[in-house]
Amino acid sequence: MTRQAAPQKVTSKEEALQLLEEFDHFLFDCDGVIWLGPDKIPGASEFVELLKEKKKTYAFVTNNSSVSRDTYKKKFEKLGFPDVTKDIIFPSCYAAALILKRDLKIPEGSKVWVLGDEGIEHELKEAGYVPLGGNDEALDEEWDPAHRLLKVDEDVKAVVIGSTKKLNYLRVATTLQYLLHKNRSIPFIGTNIDKTYPGPFGTTLPAGGSFVNYMSFTSSRDFIDVGKPSPLLLDNIIESCLFDRKKTLMFGDTLYTDVKFGNDGKLGGDAGGSLLVLSGGTSQEELDLLDKKDESLVPLYYVESVGRLLELLRN
Amino acid sequence: MTRQAAPQKVTSKEEALQLLEEFDHFLFDCDGVIWLGPDKIPGASEFVELLKEKKKTYAFVTNNSSVSRDTYKKKFEKLGFPDVTKDIIFPSCYAAALILKRDLKIPEGSKVWVLGDEGIEHELKEAGYVPLGGNDEALDEEWDPAHRLLKVDEDVKAVVIGSTKKLNYLRVATTLQYLLHKNRSIPFIGTNIDKTYPGPFGTTLPAGGSFVNYMSFTSSRDFIDVGKPSPLLLDNIIESCLFDRKKTLMFGDTLYTDVKFGNDGKLGGDAGGSLLVLSGGTSQEELDLLDKKDESLVPLYYVESVGRLLELLRN
Repeated sequence: MTRQAAPQKVTSKEEALQLLEEFDHFLFDCDGVIWLGPDKIPGASEFVELLKEKKKTYAFVTNNSSVSRDTYKKKFEKLGFPDVTKDIIFPSCYAAALILKRDLKIPEGSKVWVLGDEGIEHELKEAGYVPLGGNDEALDEEWDPAHRLLKVDEDVKAVVIGSTKKLNYLRVATTLQYLLHKNRSIPFIGTNIDKTYPGPFGTTLPAGGSFVNYMSFTSSRDFIDVGKPSPLLLDNIIESCLFDRKKTLMFGDTLYTDVKFGNDGKLGGDAGGSLLVLSGGTSQEELDLLDKKDESLVPLYYVESVGRLLELLRN
Repeated sequence: MTRQAAPQKVTSKEEALQLLEEFDHFLFDCDGVIWLGPDKIPGASEFVELLKEKKKTYAFVTNNSSVSRDTYKKKFEKLGFPDVTKDIIFPSCYAAALILKRDLKIPEGSKVWVLGDEGIEHELKEAGYVPLGGNDEALDEEWDPAHRLLKVDEDVKAVVIGSTKKLNYLRVATTLQYLLHKNRSIPFIGTNIDKTYPGPFGTTLPAGGSFVNYMSFTSSRDFIDVGKPSPLLLDNIIESCLFDRKKTLMFGDTLYTDVKFGNDGKLGGDAGGSLLVLSGGTSQEELDLLDKKDESLVPLYYVESVGRLLELLRN
């Protein structure tokens, strides 16, 4: 099978079964695919259960850097996924720690400056690093150009930036000093590239990628993206979960992160290995309007939701 | 005289006198040209005094949006410029109010959402607008996705963004709602494009343009730049001060704002009308390394400082 010009909608039991024939490993984005905020997407846990019965393997990958694997594990349990263990959950805060260690070879025990939520601090600590910055209450103090934390700690070996609700001028100013230090040479990791996410009450809220881009622009530096669609992250997951790349399918609700992750990562062989669900951030209309010339954004399959897929299989 | 390939250094009394022959109107950037932070650049007030004696006219234009004309007037007085009146001071917060009124035709009495310091609020009020947001203490409250200010006020007619030391997640999130509202159609003014400015103790600190760019990126919107090098701003100054464009020279310490402002604005006729001083953000070395192919960044003249120019003239 070769790459298609347009995504194929999964509409029948036969097509759903064929999908389970084609693939042995399943990667799921979380928000918009498995849950919507606090609520499970109907059928999601049953679909994962069915994969398990069929001896398929799977993992979960999210660009949310605010929450650690431990906290995600609890959420999975609460929503009815008792078998989802920590080693198959890949939030981008964990990806940051993983890539610092395995790809950038930053030695354990090193100090790492953080602009971001506790998920990043938690995962860095668990990987043996010493996070600085982050939620440090000293950074909640009034802005003061003579603040002691504006003086760079020479032992800091990397900077990790993600989403933070504790944004303030002192935090961005201290982070900037590290990014500019040593002629802009300290490795700069961004947890994701998402600009915004849908908040409650119809709001659209700034996401981690907005802060990553802010610091990148202000420091005139590029960053190492460790969230989707970064191939670095996919390589780490494939290796860690012992997936066969050609037999892996990525499920997601976002074209420029999830679908691109699967496509750029060469999942699924020649035909591609990405499936878009319409239960999250992308509507049928947006899919129809997509410029199909950028193949990296075109999913191989699409379906209303994982619940719909379950329904088709059970028909 | 036609455009030169390289800037001409002013080194003699004759060259300095020629400059006063060529030009009748002088536009000065402030920080790095007239003062450095709290301190006057030696000779600056005497040079301005000399221009006055020679019946030249002048004005001051700064990308700092945090401080109103009233406050700048006091600073000029304190530093020994008693004759600098409000009508020849153009900080970018005033430029925002001016351009809202004269170019965008936003009616007096309209509400304007602000992300920025009190200079913007002050100038908007003086122009007859009702600023919302800004330093409102309600925006200092803890982040809450149900915060009442996340609900858009339908009467807001424009958004102005500049530098703010009161940066927090609630402020950027509320501002984002206005930028996205009505299909991204509410006019979005950015006070300046400066990424950073030199802080005390060797620090480099985030400047207004970093916040403007942040909101532009996050909302996926362009903005109307009202600071240097915006031709909109120059048109307003020329008109307001009754300058003859061909006889006007721009003094500045920054290539991509000040020098570009003069060059793109067609000051000084065919030869150009910008002069770089080396008393601020640009060193001789940086000038030497400048890619001269981008003519908009090449000053017509350069000199150590306005004080040096005074010295040459008095020799």
